[in-house]
Amino acid sequence: MANITKKVSWSSRGDETGAVWEGTPLLNGSERPSLSRQDSASWRPKEIPHNEKLLSLKYESLDYDNIENQLFLEEERRMSFMGFRCLEISRWVVCGMIGILTGLIACFIDVVVEEVAGIKYKVIRENIVQFTEAGGLSISLILWTVLNCVFVMVGAIMVACVEPIAGGSGIPQIKCYLNGVKIPRVVRLKTLVIKVLGVICSVVGGLAVGKEGPMIHSGAVVAAGVSQGRSTSLKRDFKIFEYFRRDTEKRDFVSAGAAAGVSAAFGAPVGGVLFSLEEGASFWNQMLTWRIFFASMISTFTLNFFLSIYHGKAGELSNPGLINFGRFETETMGYNLYEIPLFIAMGAVGGALGALFNVLNYWLTIFRIRYVHRPCLQVIEAMLVAAVTAAVSFIMIYFSNDCQPLRPDHAEEYPLQLFCADGEYNSMATAFFNTPERSVRSLFHNAPGTYNPLTLGLFTLTYFFLACWTYGLSVSAGVFIPSLLIGAAWGRLCGILLASIASTGSIWADPGKYALIGAAAQLGGIVRMTLSLTVIMVEATGNVTYGLPIMLVLMTAKIVGDYFQEGLYDIHIKLQSVPFLHWEAPATSHWLTAREVMSSPVTCLNRVEKVGTIVDVLSNTSTNHNGFPVVMQVSDNDEPAKLCGLILRSQLIVLLKHKVFVELARSRLTQRKLQLKDFRDAYPRFPPIQSIHVSQDERECMMDLTEFMNATPYTVPQDTSLPRVFKLFRALGLRHLVVVDDENRVVGLVTRKDLARYHLGKHGLEELQLAQT
Amino acid sequence: MANITKKVSWSSRGDETGAVWEGTPLLNGSERPSLSRQDSASWRPKEIPHNEKLLSLKYESLDYDNIENQLFLEEERRMSFMGFRCLEISRWVVCGMIGILTGLIACFIDVVVEEVAGIKYKVIRENIVQFTEAGGLSISLILWTVLNCVFVMVGAIMVACVEPIAGGSGIPQIKCYLNGVKIPRVVRLKTLVIKVLGVICSVVGGLAVGKEGPMIHSGAVVAAGVSQGRSTSLKRDFKIFEYFRRDTEKRDFVSAGAAAGVSAAFGAPVGGVLFSLEEGASFWNQMLTWRIFFASMISTFTLNFFLSIYHGKAGELSNPGLINFGRFETETMGYNLYEIPLFIAMGAVGGALGALFNVLNYWLTIFRIRYVHRPCLQVIEAMLVAAVTAAVSFIMIYFSNDCQPLRPDHAEEYPLQLFCADGEYNSMATAFFNTPERSVRSLFHNAPGTYNPLTLGLFTLTYFFLACWTYGLSVSAGVFIPSLLIGAAWGRLCGILLASIASTGSIWADPGKYALIGAAAQLGGIVRMTLSLTVIMVEATGNVTYGLPIMLVLMTAKIVGDYFQEGLYDIHIKLQSVPFLHWEAPATSHWLTAREVMSSPVTCLNRVEKVGTIVDVLSNTSTNHNGFPVVMQVSDNDEPAKLCGLILRSQLIVLLKHKVFVELARSRLTQRKLQLKDFRDAYPRFPPIQSIHVSQDERECMMDLTEFMNATPYTVPQDTSLPRVFKLFRALGLRHLVVVDDENRVVGLVTRKDLARYHLGKHGLEELQLAQT
Repeated sequence: MANITKKVSWSSRGDETGAVWEGTPLLNGSERPSLSRQDSASWRPKEIPHNEKLLSLKYESLDYDNIENQLFLEEERRMSFMGFRCLEISRWVVCGMIGILTGLIACFIDVVVEEVAGIKYKVIRENIVQFTEAGGLSISLILWTVLNCVFVMVGAIMVACVEPIAGGSGIPQIKCYLNGVKIPRVVRLKTLVIKVLGVICSVVGGLAVGKEGPMIHSGAVVAAGVSQGRSTSLKRDFKIFEYFRRDTEKRDFVSAGAAAGVSAAFGAPVGGVLFSLEEGASFWNQMLTWRIFFASMISTFTLNFFLSIYHGKAGELSNPGLINFGRFETETMGYNLYEIPLFIAMGAVGGALGALFNVLNYWLTIFRIRYVHRPCLQVIEAMLVAAVTAAVSFIMIYFSNDCQPLRPDHAEEYPLQLFCADGEYNSMATAFFNTPERSVRSLFHNAPGTYNPLTLGLFTLTYFFLACWTYGLSVSAGVFIPSLLIGAAWGRLCGILLASIASTGSIWADPGKYALIGAAAQLGGIVRMTLSLTVIMVEATGNVTYGLPIMLVLMTAKIVGDYFQEGLYDIHIKLQSVPFLHWEAPATSHWLTAREVMSSPVTCLNRVEKVGTIVDVLSNTSTNHNGFPVVMQVSDNDEPAKLCGLILRSQLIVLLKHKVFVELARSRLTQRKLQLKDFRDAYPRFPPIQSIHVSQDERECMMDLTEFMNATPYTVPQDTSLPRVFKLFRALGLRHLVVVDDENRVVGLVTRKDLARYHLGKHGLEELQLAQT
Repeated sequence: MANITKKVSWSSRGDETGAVWEGTPLLNGSERPSLSRQDSASWRPKEIPHNEKLLSLKYESLDYDNIENQLFLEEERRMSFMGFRCLEISRWVVCGMIGILTGLIACFIDVVVEEVAGIKYKVIRENIVQFTEAGGLSISLILWTVLNCVFVMVGAIMVACVEPIAGGSGIPQIKCYLNGVKIPRVVRLKTLVIKVLGVICSVVGGLAVGKEGPMIHSGAVVAAGVSQGRSTSLKRDFKIFEYFRRDTEKRDFVSAGAAAGVSAAFGAPVGGVLFSLEEGASFWNQMLTWRIFFASMISTFTLNFFLSIYHGKAGELSNPGLINFGRFETETMGYNLYEIPLFIAMGAVGGALGALFNVLNYWLTIFRIRYVHRPCLQVIEAMLVAAVTAAVSFIMIYFSNDCQPLRPDHAEEYPLQLFCADGEYNSMATAFFNTPERSVRSLFHNAPGTYNPLTLGLFTLTYFFLACWTYGLSVSAGVFIPSLLIGAAWGRLCGILLASIASTGSIWADPGKYALIGAAAQLGGIVRMTLSLTVIMVEATGNVTYGLPIMLVLMTAKIVGDYFQEGLYDIHIKLQSVPFLHWEAPATSHWLTAREVMSSPVTCLNRVEKVGTIVDVLSNTSTNHNGFPVVMQVSDNDEPAKLCGLILRSQLIVLLKHKVFVELARSRLTQRKLQLKDFRDAYPRFPPIQSIHVSQDERECMMDLTEFMNATPYTVPQDTSLPRVFKLFRALGLRHLVVVDDENRVVGLVTRKDLARYHLGKHGLEELQLAQT
């Protein structure tokens, strides 16, 4: 069971706790000798069915509120105006570095995929050409299948066995991170490496995947790494940017990194900023937005610069080849008012198809969680999908008789002649026998008449199911491009049908614009973004005029899709039981107050507390709290006591590790005072309490928390309504909110999980169960 | 002095208090018979020099935090899920209406300006043609001057005498409104009418102004009006959207309106959303953003639809004529990496010139505040500017000998031949003898060689000073287009010079792109927006490829400009002494705590309070508070008492007006219970306390505030640092924050003014003075 949890869930507390039990074993007080055993039993009481009605207790929250303790305030007060200016400048420098590195990584992925896929397609093409005449095409099929399987196998093994969190597109994980949920290992160097190599393998392996999602995740990892000025994995500390070693600052940089990722993936700097804000930030800060914008800009710039060199046109940054989906020229493709209803109808279709995609993927994911949780099974499934994809593609191409004349400009990258006449090529092959990006491009821009309707229909159908099956495999892969491809195919189909109905009229002539609208509709129906997606599409096609129809389409797709099912990313977040906070409290939650939602009673600590008590509290895995109100005097009979501060588990652990005990301070007067630096050095991988040795003598010492606790935590009275608590939480990025009575005595604690529990279902307000799963 | 205050300041409490003293005079308690006289003396103690180191106490704040009292919670709890859904739908409907109306208003302004200016220019042109040969061009000069003066006079009289708040671009006022400062009369119907008519007059009057700022303001007024479902000015109440009658909801709609305004002004829906967010919102909410986006979209759509009819191409929404500054085609105008440093240099120049513009305008505004405060003076100044503008333009055209051949496509709208040979026209006249929008367009798009460098240099110089003189006049006018025009002129000049230096090379050939870059640099240097402005420029020129250089330029301009002087809007906000809250607390303010910044002692009320006390507290103009903590029991010796809620002046006034007294409730059992509706009906123009008659008997009654107070106000302990208080304030849009001691007893109250006081000056943290000015 432990293994299952490890593999299917993003969280992996079980795994980590086991692994880190390497320090000196904890000397538990004699009071509760059987504590740890008893707890590990109660920890995973029974197998709870994995569904979306659960909320996992295992995800920790990030703390986007500054811990304003005395140390912090002293540091801030000591800092001069110049000091703040330097900090500001270093923030810009970090954003610049994030942009450059993200751009370089995107460039690396782009170029490697291009080159390796080029070699693969050339080899297969030569083979096919050779056997078309000789008549042994099954050998080509086998070659294609085997090649794909090998690539996918490498990718799947890396993901499934080395770093499961690197699977998928990474966007849901980044969404959670920005929302304030700590997904273990999501921004580590190892994840980045596996992600980048994995996505190359899966795209080259011919799966129905895109490389854009992973690029966004990569940007976020780069940001989290660069901004900390060290790498824990490589055990290198450059002793720079130490000020940024806390959740608040790191989150800001991760937003910038995600934006830079989008910006590099689609050449859409503004879209990147909007993506970061739409998905992540709750508090919009102008300076922060500009930094994010800067990172995005630098990222596009770096990518475009290197790609212009790669394309042999060094420095030509306005080169249309740098526009992701090819530039749409409005001269040839205008639209008129009476096409708007058509676009809206296509949006509705996209929404419905997107919802279908999501429902199918939802069932599939449930199935995977239940039955496909061992790495070997996951690798086998990935290889199976790769093989089926290759086989289906081959069969579709083989049986297609849609032959088109080769155009003089050689727009087709890998034209397959097969059974077509000389000077012609198989049109189905341009869609299947290509990287998905190129297929999208050719669906958008190829001249009218390049595809016949049957080809497009069959392609849509096949690709829809292939993409649906592929998303959620243990490979590093995005869903943006496959969605666009499906949409572009049926969009183009619509265009062709319209043109044949209307029979005249230049305005219907170009099916490319319907491909664009279809692509937007399908993508919108699947991921349900609107504002950022509009801008991304506009920037990626280089045409502002289509902004208006794209917006309309995305909005329609969202409205229709939301009627049936949530967005794909939200489904996956829910299935992982992540305590995700939405933008607003559920509408009908005004009858709930802090009194009902809070955890109570809450473990409080005294201002000056016995070390033994602290160790016991921290070791008590049944409560598993991460923040503790500090009170004037804990009473014995559980009476509430006056609040005077809040302290985090991580802080207590650092204090214990450095043995900041009152008695020791007295005896060793020369002892160095604990500084913020000590907390920053330990961030973010604070050791578990079990690794800290506390002797029986030390247990009798006292610890003075005054200096380290946050002396002014946010509080609410018990009668505060849930929406009000929610707003406070969401706007300030809180992790703990202390509930006090009218004499400022602690009566409870609200955490993210207490709020995320309430959820607006089909039948009004629902309450999710909390579970350790 | 009263008159001065009224005319120069956006705020006008003095004015209003006088005007509304129409109800039954207040029966003051016998305790303080001389209260009101004494206060009105202390009110305006002496003439305080009007400078930016003051913070006016007269601006009230808006309350962007919901007042969660029992009435509100009961209403919310009664509401079903369907009720919330209906509300949500009506929000969308309102946004749609805002979009349509804003689009229509923009269309009206566009078309009327176009038509009337057309007639004006035709008349003058014919006159000039007539007198060029006859040799009496001074008559043309007089005709031109007189025509301009008449238009400007009408506009200036409307603004100066009818509604001074309609002067200027309106963007600073909307910024303040969205920030949470109540600028009197800024979103009233009368303001809208004057604004729209005024801007037509000033543009037709040939001033160096644009119509974009006023469009944005108009959008905001439309939003504030439509969302309330009634017009107080017209005394019509449609009994709809009553739920939206509070600051929180209204603010959201005003954001949407401002966005719709930008969207209509520049054809930039995404830019509009970003503008609203960059300038206004602090808490980014996804649903809200989508609604704002929807409003923007509808607005552009409406405008484009009607303009396409006006241009005779009904329904052709992708018509390039609908792109504001004409579409840039990348085929003819690429850019290369080595041009980037040039662009950045131009950005720096734009930043410096923008700062110069701002400094000059700052001095001018100070001068105006001191000496030009009577309406008649303001009208005369406006007419003077109009006359000088016309005269200078004429003289420039007259002495210019830059003749260019007329092109066959007749791109020039009103070509002036003057002393040029037949088949040629005066190039200077295309810049001066035109509406500024058209001049920008021709600087962007006219073929190379249309202007000679001397013409452009002289034009830049003249127009710079004219525009600087014009901004801040008592006319309704924006600064966007003049800034763009100045920038386009010197940008094009740069382009021509570069082309002449480089002498070869197709890449330098088109000065149009340098005009674009120059325009962006100049505008960025003046207004200091980056993200939204980038998107607006991209959308208004229809070209995504130039996004990257525009961003770089805007950022450089901002950095350089900020080094010298603030942005133009910020200067004007400061000069009006508005308590504007920036995004973050000043960097070096960590040593300040709530204890230092709060107002203390604070007037508290009992849960059940004597009517007489309440009336006295409200009538006490020396304190002028708008929120009062409600406590368990006010002690006599100013000892702090336990907090149990917060009540607003406006709520107390409604309670007094409806005589919600405990004794009356007992005697008249059938009396209707006060409902939220009563508060909503009174919103937003709550009567002043002086208009409410309270008899001596009633003064002895008691009022029970329990049901009406916000029982769970946000509180902070006394030791909370200023940045923490600031963040809470800014993120939640608070108006009052109660400071409590560790026993939850009220010790102070923090308001917007207490926070806005602290300000990062050249020499570290500065504290602004508070004054009644």
